[in-house]
Amino acid sequence: MAMRSHYCGLVTEAQLGQTVSLCGWVNRRRDHGKLIFVDLRDREGIVQVVCDPDLLNDQFKRAEDLRNEFCIQVKGVVKARTAETVNEKIGSGKIEVFAQELIVLNPSVTPPFLLDDDNLSETTRLTHRVLDLRRPYMQKNLMLRYKVAMQVRNFLDAQGFVDIETPMLGKSTPEGARDYLVPSRVHDGQFFALPQSPQLYKQMLMVAGYDRYYQITKCFRDEDLRADRQPEFTQIDCETSFLGEEEIRALFQRMVTEVFKTQLNVDLGEFPIMSYQEAAFRFGSDKPDLRVKLEFTELTEVMKTVDFKVFSGPANAEGGRVVALRVPGGAEMSRGEIDGYTEFVKIYGAKGLAWIKVNEVTKGRDGLQSPIVKNLHDEAIAEILKRTGAQDGDLLFFGADKLKIVNDAIGALRLKVGHSDFGKKSGLFENRWAPLWVVDFPMFEFDEDEQRWNAVHHPFTAPKDGHEDLMDTDPGACLAKAYDMVLNGWELGGGSVRIHRADVQQKAFDALKITPEAAQAKFGYLLDALQYGAPPHGGLAFGLDRLITLMTGADSIRDVIAFPKTQRAQDLLTQAPSPVDEKQLRELHIRLRNAQPAAQ
Amino acid sequence: MAMRSHYCGLVTEAQLGQTVSLCGWVNRRRDHGKLIFVDLRDREGIVQVVCDPDLLNDQFKRAEDLRNEFCIQVKGVVKARTAETVNEKIGSGKIEVFAQELIVLNPSVTPPFLLDDDNLSETTRLTHRVLDLRRPYMQKNLMLRYKVAMQVRNFLDAQGFVDIETPMLGKSTPEGARDYLVPSRVHDGQFFALPQSPQLYKQMLMVAGYDRYYQITKCFRDEDLRADRQPEFTQIDCETSFLGEEEIRALFQRMVTEVFKTQLNVDLGEFPIMSYQEAAFRFGSDKPDLRVKLEFTELTEVMKTVDFKVFSGPANAEGGRVVALRVPGGAEMSRGEIDGYTEFVKIYGAKGLAWIKVNEVTKGRDGLQSPIVKNLHDEAIAEILKRTGAQDGDLLFFGADKLKIVNDAIGALRLKVGHSDFGKKSGLFENRWAPLWVVDFPMFEFDEDEQRWNAVHHPFTAPKDGHEDLMDTDPGACLAKAYDMVLNGWELGGGSVRIHRADVQQKAFDALKITPEAAQAKFGYLLDALQYGAPPHGGLAFGLDRLITLMTGADSIRDVIAFPKTQRAQDLLTQAPSPVDEKQLRELHIRLRNAQPAAQ
Repeated sequence: MAMRSHYCGLVTEAQLGQTVSLCGWVNRRRDHGKLIFVDLRDREGIVQVVCDPDLLNDQFKRAEDLRNEFCIQVKGVVKARTAETVNEKIGSGKIEVFAQELIVLNPSVTPPFLLDDDNLSETTRLTHRVLDLRRPYMQKNLMLRYKVAMQVRNFLDAQGFVDIETPMLGKSTPEGARDYLVPSRVHDGQFFALPQSPQLYKQMLMVAGYDRYYQITKCFRDEDLRADRQPEFTQIDCETSFLGEEEIRALFQRMVTEVFKTQLNVDLGEFPIMSYQEAAFRFGSDKPDLRVKLEFTELTEVMKTVDFKVFSGPANAEGGRVVALRVPGGAEMSRGEIDGYTEFVKIYGAKGLAWIKVNEVTKGRDGLQSPIVKNLHDEAIAEILKRTGAQDGDLLFFGADKLKIVNDAIGALRLKVGHSDFGKKSGLFENRWAPLWVVDFPMFEFDEDEQRWNAVHHPFTAPKDGHEDLMDTDPGACLAKAYDMVLNGWELGGGSVRIHRADVQQKAFDALKITPEAAQAKFGYLLDALQYGAPPHGGLAFGLDRLITLMTGADSIRDVIAFPKTQRAQDLLTQAPSPVDEKQLRELHIRLRNAQPAAQ
Repeated sequence: MAMRSHYCGLVTEAQLGQTVSLCGWVNRRRDHGKLIFVDLRDREGIVQVVCDPDLLNDQFKRAEDLRNEFCIQVKGVVKARTAETVNEKIGSGKIEVFAQELIVLNPSVTPPFLLDDDNLSETTRLTHRVLDLRRPYMQKNLMLRYKVAMQVRNFLDAQGFVDIETPMLGKSTPEGARDYLVPSRVHDGQFFALPQSPQLYKQMLMVAGYDRYYQITKCFRDEDLRADRQPEFTQIDCETSFLGEEEIRALFQRMVTEVFKTQLNVDLGEFPIMSYQEAAFRFGSDKPDLRVKLEFTELTEVMKTVDFKVFSGPANAEGGRVVALRVPGGAEMSRGEIDGYTEFVKIYGAKGLAWIKVNEVTKGRDGLQSPIVKNLHDEAIAEILKRTGAQDGDLLFFGADKLKIVNDAIGALRLKVGHSDFGKKSGLFENRWAPLWVVDFPMFEFDEDEQRWNAVHHPFTAPKDGHEDLMDTDPGACLAKAYDMVLNGWELGGGSVRIHRADVQQKAFDALKITPEAAQAKFGYLLDALQYGAPPHGGLAFGLDRLITLMTGADSIRDVIAFPKTQRAQDLLTQAPSPVDEKQLRELHIRLRNAQPAAQ
């Protein structure tokens, strides 16, 4: 005889009059006259169980002893609730179950916190993760995560993609982020690395003719953690042969669109396609949040002639930029608020934050309030007002520095203002889903410290058609067949068409000053593979954790992962990492560099 | 315009008269008069492309230059083959494609071997894995692997199982197999361990109320490798709440049955259920290959009274066993063959292999040929013949030693003889699928070296109902709610109902001489979780690599894994593991124990 006939949350009027058998946890017990009401909870929801001593007889004592989080089994009859006791908020709200048998499967000690307490510290939640995971908030997040992953699998399956597992124990490549290493016991002094991504393996699968590959798989980066990073994270990793850039984008746009439609009933609409150049120019970002209705106004040319070094310096310097950010209605901001933003942009390397309040635009200079207006000639002021389209009551912020600092600082300021209470109140923030593609990334960016070109994506990205020779002659002008899918200012996924010819790949290595010998040592197996009729191919990887965080509106990426690490890369539940036995280290041919405090 | 309209292998008469666009690899080129025939291959199969200079004009030169493994694109018209050129062996065998356009997407240097060479060394195959993966044999294996995994996902999804990811960077537990360790950069002197299985995480997910969990996930064991082992392997890992042992078995039997039916059109039929005790008694194994029609004959009692120490010693010793293995028709074996088997059983610790050839059973002692008959009294001989049911022409092998040695050695001999050419020719091997459940495993086995009880499965396995107290009073008699699914002598999967009460868990630790303090230090988080109304739960894990090896009939587990390690735990393609930079080691607070030879 099965312990359970129905999930608690799924008992409805369809079962009226039937005897059901339920298993779950006591969410709440209420004593009401001679009756005891139990809200019984499982992953599908809550049902009300009525314990009546006349029905339960000897077993009524068990109901009296119930406490929160006891795991129990109930057999009983489904009856309709009276009209005044119907609870429209829950699926089972029109019925209740009159218990005829009650078995305590396992009692519970008193939990360290109430499951419906929304003010728990993250330390408490992660330390008692098992109880935290019982909370409907976490269950909803992880269930959605599963449903999205499964829908993605079914979508890709229908498109002919095949899930092929690639190794977790791979080769360390010192390029890029820091690897997690795994000492080899069999090979003294040698190490495996956990994959930062299956990039080269998936390309080799294309060369091997598998045509379409995907994997939902763990990747690892040993970097200092930010709010949206974890040491191990999950990618939806895809690669296809014989499709061009636009076909690949269309395919994966459809995938994401279908997921949002099915899971959230959200229509993402058409995705605008924006070049990297345009995104940087208008929003100072390669992942612009289009919900924020603020844009940069380009002023570099205008400021070349002013007498104000703060502006004219960057405007005339190579690689400098001057922009304004017009904030409609921003003139109402207090000096304190503006000072706050000034401190904020310094995080991004800006030296300060010039501003102008536009009180009466028709009055020209006299209608403006600002510490800097006196430094600007009339023509510059007129041009600023014209280009920004400033209106009475607006605030203009200015950024003037090296291009990267201006983009980073004013780009961040744009988001900060847009997402602020002021921004929302003033209609600067549009509450919608704002997807777009950012395309035409540069192949290379110049590393000032190392005085050499680095790959913006990775060294296997194909140049745009006709840009092959630029890799040699003008790397800075060479664009890549690379694309990022951006949603609400988050990079959801990114990818590229890859280089499929060994000679082009060697050119890319040349541009990156990777010698043929070094290339052979590091990526020889890929170069080798490219010689055997490698097909044109390309792909994309989505960050599943980020996707689900966005879809659920969770506060943190840690709220969509069952057992996450803290920002100190620790598992507070199991206390990993932890010291290990000397014997284990000996077998791995390693020793600790530093003496450790004696074990407790 | 898309590069491809159809997969090569899927062009059929349905496309007659249509223009198709195909992409693939030149499998073979044949020149035939003025025409060139190209067998064009992709993952779905082969299609014949006809290159006619009158149709291709300028591009015919390209056809002349084609070599094996060139990646090409062909546009052409589908025409019916003439009756005498139809090829029934391939799906596209009734048509051919007359090329109108031919583009070389990527040429190929001459591959180091022919793709249809079946005699490649494993070193060659793993070194040139990308080309090896192009072979239809490997493609078929990996495609089946994917289809099985996807069917399993769909089956489990329909049963309410939810895929929840558990950490790869976990805590090292020195019990069990050796861990792969990952040094922590953030926490000096501390290490993560890669999971040997998600056992404790999945149990915690049950406690957290997720009800049904699965994951197809990598597990890691740093053990010396045997033919069917890999350092990283893939488990279909499942757990459910509120089901009993029989319900769990029924559910997963259905899963495997459906997979075999769908993928191989094989009906596995009902699975016999055999106790561990019976399996060991009859076959000397906890994973008997029921295709081999040989069984042990128990002779321990009979041999107590013989004068032959080789038999009477073990028969009278505590924990000794004497058995016969009757091999019908085996009397025809040569002395050399028998000597071979004698050497074979020594691998398993047997000191020798006694035997009797039964020439004329009605003559009793005189009808037997054997070096040992003279040592056995008449009654013993009569009993041997009676119990084994020996017939003229049979061979009887004997095992006499400690029970474990007898079971291992004669169990292995049973398989060796059954699978031999002799066994197959003599009908001792039945060519069928032979699944069964082995159940009622003992909870504990005694470790003679350590003089203590060890867990046969793992310390979280629940005892049979009523056996709880035996954990304390008679551990050797305590049976577990554990079960293995066995197919053709391979353990396909195994699992158990788990302990869900903290007090019972502590009893199990007591039996294993794990002190409360040690249990708390190692598994405190699980013990803690069990206190909060843990539900009754249990599960199972299948070895996906093994399952696919069995289903494909592959020679090795390495033939169902895209990028496997060698038996020396190396990746010959990427050359992992490999030495790493001193800087990397410094960041991880470790150093090498032994000086390394200078880098090449």
